Amino acid sequence: MKKFKIIFFLLISSLIYGQDIKGEIIDLTHTFSEESVYWVTAKEFRLEEVANGKTDAGFYYSANNFSTAEHGGTHIDAPIHFAENKHTVDQIPLENLIGIGVKIDVSEKALKNPDYLISLEDLKNWETNNGSIPNNSIVLFETGFGKFYPNAKKYLGTENRGPGAIKELHFPGLSPEAAIWLIENRKIKAVGLDTASIDYGQSTNFATHVALMTQNVPAFENVANLEQLPATGFQVIALPMKIKGGSGAPLRIIAIY
Amino acid sequence: MKKFKIIFFLLISSLIYGQDIKGEIIDLTHTFSEESVYWVTAKEFRLEEVANGKTDAGFYYSANNFSTAEHGGTHIDAPIHFAENKHTVDQIPLENLIGIGVKIDVSEKALKNPDYLISLEDLKNWETNNGSIPNNSIVLFETGFGKFYPNAKKYLGTENRGPGAIKELHFPGLSPEAAIWLIENRKIKAVGLDTASIDYGQSTNFATHVALMTQNVPAFENVANLEQLPATGFQVIALPMKIKGGSGAPLRIIAIY
Repeated sequence: MKKFKIIFFLLISSLIYGQDIKGEIIDLTHTFSEESVYWVTAKEFRLEEVANGKTDAGFYYSANNFSTAEHGGTHIDAPIHFAENKHTVDQIPLENLIGIGVKIDVSEKALKNPDYLISLEDLKNWETNNGSIPNNSIVLFETGFGKFYPNAKKYLGTENRGPGAIKELHFPGLSPEAAIWLIENRKIKAVGLDTASIDYGQSTNFATHVALMTQNVPAFENVANLEQLPATGFQVIALPMKIKGGSGAPLRIIAIY
Repeated sequence: MKKFKIIFFLLISSLIYGQDIKGEIIDLTHTFSEESVYWVTAKEFRLEEVANGKTDAGFYYSANNFSTAEHGGTHIDAPIHFAENKHTVDQIPLENLIGIGVKIDVSEKALKNPDYLISLEDLKNWETNNGSIPNNSIVLFETGFGKFYPNAKKYLGTENRGPGAIKELHFPGLSPEAAIWLIENRKIKAVGLDTASIDYGQSTNFATHVALMTQNVPAFENVANLEQLPATGFQVIALPMKIKGGSGAPLRIIAIY
């Protein structure tokens, strides 16, 4: 438990300074179903019906079991996913998952190039227009690929599955250079984007994951509805399933603005 | 997306009227592991390691799969769990899962009687001391049983599993009378408690579930750390995994106060 004052201060100062608070909740989460997008080698989501109907005792009853990889659908990569001895998903401090959000829209470039790498220039252009990324921000990248979800062919670049499909993955991601600049020059809590991985589809060394997670910065992947967010002026609340020792987990992520 | 003004108004009015904002985040969630408490007939949580160590490519990598019943550990019962055609877990409006919290502590009575039913009198006593339960509240009940988690013998009344163990379940719950009074006389968003079920262990007709869920009121079960909350003056944010058509789901629930 730590102090959690930023949200209060932002809201108060928003009112004092007359900034518009629209006060809407936006769900940035895709539903989990058999259509959910998973890494080509990962175990997909399966729901198994246990009960659905009237019981002998007279009341209606519905219940299911499910199985899934930690990393699929809208989920969090905990730092330990790519960095030994760093936070497991249950160890990530809650204050790192709640805070001021900024959205960096690179969709114009990324939709023209499925191998697009979000660059340091993209970050600097955003700051020229919006001011410096605030301390303790959660930084969300809109590549535009969210609109293809759950069409694997368009969203991942391939509808094939298995190890042989890895080389067919084509979707945008955050360049290692931009990730390292964010870590070294801005104080960020977490990053997220509307693709299946914070590293682009053609990555083989996952250098962006390694750079972020070595610094205990988690990543939110397959984030939904980013086109509904403004560039600044919203709060993010990202609450993952609390799996003991988990390298990641299904995530419910919302924005309030 | 709907208007979400209550949290803003509460925070602003708290400042204007000088109420103390402590501004702490409290995690009301138990971790999921093989120790997690599940209904005696439910499929328990299992984590299966997929990778944990240095890859041939040189980077560290950890990943797991898991399987579970929807209803186990800290979870939500969606209305459809006991009420046909009511909200599935993905259909519950987010604004019903975020809002003013109140805590009703019945632990003194419940710890003396594992079959304790939270009564209408308990609600009225709380209101005598704290004022009327505010409109749009999330009502949390502290039975004191949270401190026994995950010891099944103490928490559920039995460490046996399977259909034969159902009659051995002894833990407190909310009486149907109190649930119906809440629905008919107070406008509540959701209820929660620190036992395995909103109906007490000896229930056979699950009348409290039926009463709540017929009115589209969800329930949070196996909630943790309720002893850390005051009676009033906090916000609850309860974000379940967004399972399409789910009758419930693992829940990450926090309080801010």
